[in-house]
Amino acid sequence: MDDLFLRACRRAPVERTPVWFMRQAGRYQPEYRALRERHGILEICRTPELAAQVTALPVAQLGVDAAILFSDIMVPVAAMGASLEIVEGRGPVIDPPVRSADDLGRLHALEPDGDVPFVMDAVRHVVEQLGHPLIGFAGAPFTLASYLVEGGPSRDYARTKALMWSDPGTWDRLMSLLADSMAAYLRAQVAAGAAAVQLFDSWVGALSEDDYRRCVLPYSARILAGVEGVPRIHFGVGTGHLLEAMRDAGADVVGVDWRTPLDRAWKRVGEDVALQGNLDPAAVLASPEALGRAVVGVLDAAGGRAGHVFNLGHGVLPSTDPAALRSVVDLVREHTGGSP
Amino acid sequence: MDDLFLRACRRAPVERTPVWFMRQAGRYQPEYRALRERHGILEICRTPELAAQVTALPVAQLGVDAAILFSDIMVPVAAMGASLEIVEGRGPVIDPPVRSADDLGRLHALEPDGDVPFVMDAVRHVVEQLGHPLIGFAGAPFTLASYLVEGGPSRDYARTKALMWSDPGTWDRLMSLLADSMAAYLRAQVAAGAAAVQLFDSWVGALSEDDYRRCVLPYSARILAGVEGVPRIHFGVGTGHLLEAMRDAGADVVGVDWRTPLDRAWKRVGEDVALQGNLDPAAVLASPEALGRAVVGVLDAAGGRAGHVFNLGHGVLPSTDPAALRSVVDLVREHTGGSP
Repeated sequence: MDDLFLRACRRAPVERTPVWFMRQAGRYQPEYRALRERHGILEICRTPELAAQVTALPVAQLGVDAAILFSDIMVPVAAMGASLEIVEGRGPVIDPPVRSADDLGRLHALEPDGDVPFVMDAVRHVVEQLGHPLIGFAGAPFTLASYLVEGGPSRDYARTKALMWSDPGTWDRLMSLLADSMAAYLRAQVAAGAAAVQLFDSWVGALSEDDYRRCVLPYSARILAGVEGVPRIHFGVGTGHLLEAMRDAGADVVGVDWRTPLDRAWKRVGEDVALQGNLDPAAVLASPEALGRAVVGVLDAAGGRAGHVFNLGHGVLPSTDPAALRSVVDLVREHTGGSP
Repeated sequence: MDDLFLRACRRAPVERTPVWFMRQAGRYQPEYRALRERHGILEICRTPELAAQVTALPVAQLGVDAAILFSDIMVPVAAMGASLEIVEGRGPVIDPPVRSADDLGRLHALEPDGDVPFVMDAVRHVVEQLGHPLIGFAGAPFTLASYLVEGGPSRDYARTKALMWSDPGTWDRLMSLLADSMAAYLRAQVAAGAAAVQLFDSWVGALSEDDYRRCVLPYSARILAGVEGVPRIHFGVGTGHLLEAMRDAGADVVGVDWRTPLDRAWKRVGEDVALQGNLDPAAVLASPEALGRAVVGVLDAAGGRAGHVFNLGHGVLPSTDPAALRSVVDLVREHTGGSP
C-alpha cells in the first residue's frame, strides 16, 4: 500500500495531499461531450472499453491521484429488475416506481458477475491501463430507494420518507435487498481490482439524524462492514448534521461537503478517521484569485493533518472549465509540498 | 400584545403552543387550485381582494393562529425593474438576468407605496377581516440575488457565488439595493397592519458559515434592524449550520428546518430567542400514526419552553391532504394544553 491516495485514506504519512474530484469524468469535458454524441450514458456504462476510456481520461488530463469508475448509481439497480432510463436534464427515471411490497417482487438480489459483468470488465480494463488506484463505487440504500420510490430525482423525498415512516416492514425489505446487493457489488469491484470504494448516499442529508440512525444507518453499515481490505469512503451532500452518524456507519474516510470546515468536521468525528473534501464546486467558476483563496482556505482548515484527501464538496459542475480544475490540482500540490 | 402567537414570538407565557404553516395558502388547497384556473399567480399577488382572500382561507380552514400574506418573494423585485415571470413547475424566472454592474442599472430602489401599493392594500384588507395577526414577509437579499443572477431557480447557485467571491463591489451594490428595498417593504407592511414579519432566506443554506457571515449577514442584519416594534422571524431551509449566524443577524424568532431538533437548536442559539418549527413537511403525508409520533417528537424536543411557534420545517407540500394538516393543528392543541 505505497500509493499516496491510499496512504492518506489510512491516515499514514504522505509527501503531499492527494487530490481527486467527484464527477471528474463528465459533461464539463469536451472529449466526454463528443463521446456522448455517439453513445448514450447507459451504453457507455455497459461497454467496458468506453467506461474505461471515460474513467481514465481525467487522470491524464488533470493529474489527479485516483480514478473513479465511470458509471451511474442506478446501473446495478436496473440489473436487479428496475426499469431505468436516464433522461437528459432530469436524471435517472424509474417507471414504474417501486412503492409497495408487491412492487418489490419485481426486484431480485444482485449477482454482480452475472448481472453486471461489464462493470467488472471495465474495472479490470482501467486497472491494467492506469498507474493510479481506481475507486469503485455504489449508491447507498437510502439514495437508491429514493429513486425507486419517487420514480426519479426529487426535491423533498416525501414518498420515500412516508414509506419509511409508515411501513417499516416494506422499508426493511427494500433496504435489506439494496444493502446486500450493493455489498456484493462493491466486493466484486474490489475483486476485479478496485483499490478503494466510495459509498454515495447523495440525498440522505434530507433526513434528521434520528431518522438516519434508525432507518438508514443499519443498512449502510451492513454494506461497509461487508467490504474489507480497502479504504471505505462515505459521502452525501448536505450531511453536515450527519457526520458522526456516517462515521458510525463504518467509514474509514468521511466525505464532507463545503458547508462544514474540515477543522470543525475533525473535531466532531475524531482524528481516527480520514476526511475527504471540501472545496465548493462553485469556487472553480470564480476568478483565479478567488479560487486560489478558496483552495488555500480548505488546506488551512485541514491544517496538514494526516488523512486529508482533497476533493470538491460535491461533483464537478457541468459549466466548469477543465483548465480551472487542473489549476486546483496544481495549487494543492504547490501548497502541500509536492512539485506542481 | 395579548395575542397568543405574538406572545410566543416574544417568549412570554402562553396557554398553548401557537401554530401556523409556511405556505399554508397554496396548491394543496382545492379552493386555491380553483382560483388559479381563473387567475395567474402574479395577478392574485397584485389584486388586493384576491390576495386577501387567499391569505385568509387557511386561517378558517385549518384553525391556525396566524395568517401570512400570500405573495411571491419576487413581486417587489419585479417592481424594482426586474423582468419577472412565474413559470409553472419551475418557479420565478428573471429574463434577462442581473449579473453585472451594468445590469444593476436596470433596477431602482423600491418605494413600496408607489411601486407595490396593492401589497399594502391586501395587508389592510386581511387585517380588517381577520381576528388573527398577519405576518408580513420579504425575501432576504441572498435568495433574491440568487434568482436575479441565476435567472431563475438553481441547484448550485454557482453564478451567484462566483459573483459574490469574484466581484465584491458589484455584490455590495446589489445586496445593498435589495436590503434597503426589503427593509422599506417590510416597514410599509407593518405600517399597513402586519403584526410580525418573516424574512425568508430560503436558499442561503447553500453557503458556508464563513461566506454567510462575510457576504450575507450584514445585509440581512440591515433589514432586520430596520424593522422595529414587531417580532422578526428569520428562516432558511438547510440552514442547520447557520443557526447562530442567523440569530446574530437580528432575528427574534429563528426558523429551524426539520434536520435540527429544537432542543439542540436552543442549546446552540441560546434561550433568549424564540424558535419556529420544525415538523418535516413529508410527515404530513405519512400514516396518521407516524404523523402523530412526529408531531409529538417536535413538541417533546421543544420541551414546553417559552418561545416555541409550531410550524413545518419548510413549506406545505403540494400533495398534502388539508385534513392531515388540520389534524396537526388539533394535535398541537391537545398536547400543549388547549382544547383541540
